[in-house]
Amino acid sequence: MSRDPLEDLLETLRCLPGVGARTSQRMAMHLLERDRQGGQRLAEALARAMRDIRRCRLCRNFTADDLCRVCSNPSRSAETLCVVESPADVLAIEAATGYQGRYFVLLGRLSPLDGIGPEELGLDLLERRLRDEPIEELIIATNTTVEGEATAYYLQEMANRHGARISRLAQGVPLGGELEHTDRSTLAHAFASRLPL
Amino acid sequence: MSRDPLEDLLETLRCLPGVGARTSQRMAMHLLERDRQGGQRLAEALARAMRDIRRCRLCRNFTADDLCRVCSNPSRSAETLCVVESPADVLAIEAATGYQGRYFVLLGRLSPLDGIGPEELGLDLLERRLRDEPIEELIIATNTTVEGEATAYYLQEMANRHGARISRLAQGVPLGGELEHTDRSTLAHAFASRLPL
Repeated sequence: MSRDPLEDLLETLRCLPGVGARTSQRMAMHLLERDRQGGQRLAEALARAMRDIRRCRLCRNFTADDLCRVCSNPSRSAETLCVVESPADVLAIEAATGYQGRYFVLLGRLSPLDGIGPEELGLDLLERRLRDEPIEELIIATNTTVEGEATAYYLQEMANRHGARISRLAQGVPLGGELEHTDRSTLAHAFASRLPL
Repeated sequence: MSRDPLEDLLETLRCLPGVGARTSQRMAMHLLERDRQGGQRLAEALARAMRDIRRCRLCRNFTADDLCRVCSNPSRSAETLCVVESPADVLAIEAATGYQGRYFVLLGRLSPLDGIGPEELGLDLLERRLRDEPIEELIIATNTTVEGEATAYYLQEMANRHGARISRLAQGVPLGGELEHTDRSTLAHAFASRLPL
């Protein structure tokens, strides 16, 4: 590359989501003026992550090893499998809950129009695991979007064929939320699904 | 390093200004899921910039060469010198104006409490240039903060000693701004410095 290193940096920083021309400039100037060490460390971490991080052989989550930390941890229960759309969802569930089972990461959702079918989401691998492993409960934690719901329906059919119990994250008004500010469809759903006390 | 590459990436991304835990996660996931090439290019651009970018020998702006693009461009006038606080100010002036002179980048402002005196800002180098070069006008474009103004005052004294003409960017209400929403001190200054039509 014979391009100017500063111009090159300003342009490549924009591959980060949410970073436009102004933010890119602010980031570059900050690193150059005040944190060259940080910039170097970031360059190394990025290069290493892009090179080494792949998918876990069992759950398709990101990992630098053959198996991710959850799948290689013998104290995590092999009887519950929580299916999520993305690795970020795993981080969120790990941080918020005391869940002790394992995961399966789709890295996407069924979306035939975008050419994303069951194979792209590794659902053949999931079906094999449902068949071969002693999985008792499949927790469906896909997003509550149209595509997430379609994916959940597909997963439900699959789990039914293999006799696993199926659950789906509860849907309703968020904790600490005010009814007044809850969106209509959530409120309608929560009202219709009200529980006896 | 034996740390997990993903954790390492999540942490080092936070050395970027304005990037906290959530943004760092969003950036890492975006690169890993959708733009590994971009991530690699960014790693290379960062490493190269942190290694190669230094200060121009004449104007102290960032450059990968001995002289920056402005200082090495023979068609830029050597008779006008615009003094700015940061390389970002140079970019802003280059983008907004048709300025054809050269720059001097302080990379900071006088701030005795933080231990930033004339030497840290390269003012000895600037004084030498005022003495040795045919500089006719010194445009002071430091920020209009207290420290920027103090720096401007210091620069003015220095230029006076060398007989250069001095100018300062006009201060007043911004173009396209509404008086109603202009801050008090700007409005007071603009009112007091009103110009005859």
